[in-house]
Amino acid sequence: MSRMLDEIRQQPAVLARILKTELPRALKFRAVLEKRQPRLIVLAARGTSDNAAQFGRYLLEITTGIPVSLAAPSISTLYGAKIDYRDALVIAISQSGESTDTNFVLEQARKQGALTIGITNEAQSTLAKLAQQVFLVRAGKEKSVAATKTYSGQVLVFYLIALALGGDIRVSDLEKIPEWTAHALTLEDEIERLSERFRFMEQAVVVGRGLNYANAFEFALKMMETCYVVAERFSSADFLHGPIALVEKNFPLFLFAPSGVTWPSMLEMIHKLCMLKAEMVVVTDQSNRALPPGLPRVLTIPARVPEVFTPIPYVIPAQLFAAYLARQKNLDPDQPRTLSKVTLTL
Amino acid sequence: MSRMLDEIRQQPAVLARILKTELPRALKFRAVLEKRQPRLIVLAARGTSDNAAQFGRYLLEITTGIPVSLAAPSISTLYGAKIDYRDALVIAISQSGESTDTNFVLEQARKQGALTIGITNEAQSTLAKLAQQVFLVRAGKEKSVAATKTYSGQVLVFYLIALALGGDIRVSDLEKIPEWTAHALTLEDEIERLSERFRFMEQAVVVGRGLNYANAFEFALKMMETCYVVAERFSSADFLHGPIALVEKNFPLFLFAPSGVTWPSMLEMIHKLCMLKAEMVVVTDQSNRALPPGLPRVLTIPARVPEVFTPIPYVIPAQLFAAYLARQKNLDPDQPRTLSKVTLTL
Repeated sequence: MSRMLDEIRQQPAVLARILKTELPRALKFRAVLEKRQPRLIVLAARGTSDNAAQFGRYLLEITTGIPVSLAAPSISTLYGAKIDYRDALVIAISQSGESTDTNFVLEQARKQGALTIGITNEAQSTLAKLAQQVFLVRAGKEKSVAATKTYSGQVLVFYLIALALGGDIRVSDLEKIPEWTAHALTLEDEIERLSERFRFMEQAVVVGRGLNYANAFEFALKMMETCYVVAERFSSADFLHGPIALVEKNFPLFLFAPSGVTWPSMLEMIHKLCMLKAEMVVVTDQSNRALPPGLPRVLTIPARVPEVFTPIPYVIPAQLFAAYLARQKNLDPDQPRTLSKVTLTL
Repeated sequence: MSRMLDEIRQQPAVLARILKTELPRALKFRAVLEKRQPRLIVLAARGTSDNAAQFGRYLLEITTGIPVSLAAPSISTLYGAKIDYRDALVIAISQSGESTDTNFVLEQARKQGALTIGITNEAQSTLAKLAQQVFLVRAGKEKSVAATKTYSGQVLVFYLIALALGGDIRVSDLEKIPEWTAHALTLEDEIERLSERFRFMEQAVVVGRGLNYANAFEFALKMMETCYVVAERFSSADFLHGPIALVEKNFPLFLFAPSGVTWPSMLEMIHKLCMLKAEMVVVTDQSNRALPPGLPRVLTIPARVPEVFTPIPYVIPAQLFAAYLARQKNLDPDQPRTLSKVTLTL
């Protein structure tokens, strides 16, 4: 068995651990933020952590109304720009805590007087030392190069930060996330069988919208890293502005389709893709009862998950699919060619 | 001949027209901005215009130090969030000016007291009426569904806005952009010949960094829309954080490689791709004298272009390549399947 698969299965336990120690930390941190409400939130990350940041961007703007910017680190590291982050809350996200460029962004911002948060899996890392407030992902050592449990852990920490910023997040809902995630893991056998069909798939598109847009990035990245599938990722809105031209009969697409505000646009997309005779795999849960009948490949998480909490349970089928597809393709998802676990860039 | 090719060739004239009318407008607008310096800049766009916004994001942060956020319109249109844009400058970019979701973002922001700018090709459009300050792209009617001249025009307008915000942009350099663009167009015959080699290419990766990151998005979008190539786009830093695993012998990659601050990271990337025996096409200009010898496919613009002004000349070879590749593939780039010129999304 791959380490990746092993680590995917650990997620309910990791998420429960995070809630145990980091939820009280978030509630305590709320007092700091009440006295010092930021005017802007800046998120700095790379790779999988940047996909978690993409989620954070949606969640924080939706729940707090504070504008969020995803940092482009090269603007500071290469162009030497001094961006005015005085009233900002700057959050760097890094599994290892040793990402040189995002640490640089955080350090510069702190010198300017910004409030800084680090989200990392390593309590002794450079990032944990640089940031004023640290949230730990508590995933244990992540041995697979393909990050899974640290992604869902980082996503969970963003809910805690939204709560600390006064966002409308119910603690009782947060506490259900490990359980919803466990429900998603029950799809493992079904996904193993499904993955065989895609043994010779070489390209794909993943579509998600709103809070699940980040999952589209993460699913595509997992398929690129572990299966060498050229996987594109789009929001359904951007997809209609050009890339949908790619789709011909049998073109494979993976869609995140929760109920809620993004559903009408996803349904429109599904109708369009049916007409184009594309091959779709749809990830959803029991609360979405409006799926067109007769769709052949629907992965339904056996739980009713409110849309705002779908991103963690929904990424589980994606991770499982990538891990099993790698196996079908006789690839080792733990050691993708050309990659190492910590990537240093400036 | 395709309309797309025709419109690509019009770009020096379009850019000169923009400078003639919009440069004085920008210089006048500077007085408004001096009295009311924004704390945040928000850019709202879709499709090709969103790629121009991606460029604007880098240029404005680098030259003004004001933080920039690329809006995710669904946060306002679907989730109904009221984002605090009081001290912001909100810029919507749309060729037609009729993009419903980005117009909505701008309208909401204006109601909150934000300063608003519209960048559009249509003087009578909804966007032109909604925004307090309008910059026109003056590209004439764009008949091809694949946008080219409006992209370079939007990019040029971002230089004007940077100037209006007090950014360090020399007018004498701006005035050279049409000429540099004309130099880039002299590569047309070379690109026509080169395109034949890629007749059966089905997937590709485009890499750009910093100010040319937006061009990677735009080149990939053009190849997706007009040639149905599954084309990924990455910054060289993000690419090393996972997707580089895709690259095997003969995998096709297109790189924007200007001299300047991004060059060392591009050179490192080129060395890595040489070792992996990937097939590279490199876009550069005469000011980059450090390219490793013996690279077989280098498109060198016959001019010396300072890095900050490379994005417009560099996108020309990309547009030409997409137009000619479409022809090699017997496709009509003006009418991609499934697409129409104006896309309405919420």
